[in-house]
Amino acid sequence: MRATAKAHTNIALIKYWGKRNEEIILPTNSSLSVTLDAFYTETTVHFKEELERDTFILNDQEISGVPYDQVTNYLELFRSYADQKGLFAEVHSLNKVPTAAGFASSASGFAALAGATAKALQLNLDDTALSRFTRQGSGSACRSIYGGFVQWEMGTLADGSDSYAIPIAPQDHWDIRVAAVVLTAKEKDVSSRVGMKRTVDTSAFYDGWLETLPRDLEEIKEGIGRRDFEKVGAIAEANCLKMHATTLGAVPPFTYWQDTTMSVMETVQQLRKEGISAYFTIDAGPNVKVLYLPEDEEKVMQKLQATNGVTEVIVSKVGEGISYL
Amino acid sequence: MRATAKAHTNIALIKYWGKRNEEIILPTNSSLSVTLDAFYTETTVHFKEELERDTFILNDQEISGVPYDQVTNYLELFRSYADQKGLFAEVHSLNKVPTAAGFASSASGFAALAGATAKALQLNLDDTALSRFTRQGSGSACRSIYGGFVQWEMGTLADGSDSYAIPIAPQDHWDIRVAAVVLTAKEKDVSSRVGMKRTVDTSAFYDGWLETLPRDLEEIKEGIGRRDFEKVGAIAEANCLKMHATTLGAVPPFTYWQDTTMSVMETVQQLRKEGISAYFTIDAGPNVKVLYLPEDEEKVMQKLQATNGVTEVIVSKVGEGISYL
Repeated sequence: MRATAKAHTNIALIKYWGKRNEEIILPTNSSLSVTLDAFYTETTVHFKEELERDTFILNDQEISGVPYDQVTNYLELFRSYADQKGLFAEVHSLNKVPTAAGFASSASGFAALAGATAKALQLNLDDTALSRFTRQGSGSACRSIYGGFVQWEMGTLADGSDSYAIPIAPQDHWDIRVAAVVLTAKEKDVSSRVGMKRTVDTSAFYDGWLETLPRDLEEIKEGIGRRDFEKVGAIAEANCLKMHATTLGAVPPFTYWQDTTMSVMETVQQLRKEGISAYFTIDAGPNVKVLYLPEDEEKVMQKLQATNGVTEVIVSKVGEGISYL
Repeated sequence: MRATAKAHTNIALIKYWGKRNEEIILPTNSSLSVTLDAFYTETTVHFKEELERDTFILNDQEISGVPYDQVTNYLELFRSYADQKGLFAEVHSLNKVPTAAGFASSASGFAALAGATAKALQLNLDDTALSRFTRQGSGSACRSIYGGFVQWEMGTLADGSDSYAIPIAPQDHWDIRVAAVVLTAKEKDVSSRVGMKRTVDTSAFYDGWLETLPRDLEEIKEGIGRRDFEKVGAIAEANCLKMHATTLGAVPPFTYWQDTTMSVMETVQQLRKEGISAYFTIDAGPNVKVLYLPEDEEKVMQKLQATNGVTEVIVSKVGEGISYL
């Protein structure tokens, strides 16, 4: 009753930005991501008859409080499913997602936890079922079950049975790069959970956002299919700008951008003016991720590292899906 | 057949952002501005029988090309109305609107030109009729006919006869200040005319923008009426953010913001965290205007001048309407 799983984080090119069901995490739109090789979580789950409660060790530290509650609540989902109430586990996680990089470690974290737990309980879930479970831990985590390019199909059913990830193109389909640009840290005023909810509930632009998504998704998949980097990059960048525009129409308005966020955006636009295909995307935080092709790495890195406010640039290739060790 | 008029520029608190008729300049929404004392244009128009063409002298320099064409085409509007075809004028303008401050000098420019021309031709227009004429030179210029707080009523008629400015509160109603924050200049990629049109034609957020405006307008007038600075400032700032959000949803997307624009926005938000009521608004360019109350001037100026990228801060009081010298 012991298993270890490794899952990578992912960055959305078509953003997930809003829930239609907060309880079992159902999104208001389908999204699409690329799995990232450089950032992952490795988790071992060991169910033992003699335990009286779950324990959660993250990077060799025993965790309590909210993160512990999230893990134990999440395990409860599997225990109910497996009819194993009262069977507790030791959870050991190793997180290779630097918080400063502005990736939600919840994506790789919940994917690895789901994979290891399902395996330890010998549930024999297929990837679709596993993705459905993962979604209920953290929405975007469901995309981390697969490598390469992955779509999270929003689904329409109330029970969420048709809301899961599907692979669009495998890891070896296309060698693109993603640079995670780390900026001088400032305090984040609005969490992504709170920001997402405020936007859905109040933004004047939320309907406009939703209306453009089916086309963005269709076109970016077409672009990924024929490895059209300009097309994929332009759609991803425009989609990110639209997502961030919705926060400016919320009541009260807010933004995840800092002045340094804008500096990196300007650097990327400047790179394009110089003939280098680079595009940015930004999640619910100030840090910027830059997409480019391997042959442009030197020029892209040089410009990014020279940009005002940049403290570190971490490069990633396209990553693989969940694996078991 | 000679007259001199002086008109001030204005800054919109509820933005004009889109035309429903490009020819005679009819807007898609009503807007509201405050007239600014520190920035104005003084224009003398002298019609002379012996002239064979118009001449346009701006700040002691004879002007040709596009600006000249705009002036002479605009005079033509008055000549047609006055049945004075073939009567030409010398136009002398003195522009006290520094281009670097990021104000459209067209607002004070066309208002002063309209006033002086109408007077020189002895047209005896009332302010409403004059505002209607001014609107056809440059949309937001129609608001510069009045001092204090001014609404540009969008109107609904196809001939534009109900699209003109109306005074909401006179200059002496309320002593607020507007600091024009001048930033290190970078090249502007998209002109306001082009940006406005692209937004109307392609932005996913344009409908959302229009929908929220009647309420913004109603509430800000209520706030101006009872001199509620927090309310007026918050509505103006949110309205500006919404206007700029629409550009992020255009195809292709664009923004007028620079990293330094964001720095000033952050400074203003920081001022509020320190208990000082300051709010920003931004037109179709990178520069920021900051609204505050006279008693906070020292602290506001200090913070703004210490902000990264700020080259100059020019303070203005509320200005008066058009006058004749």
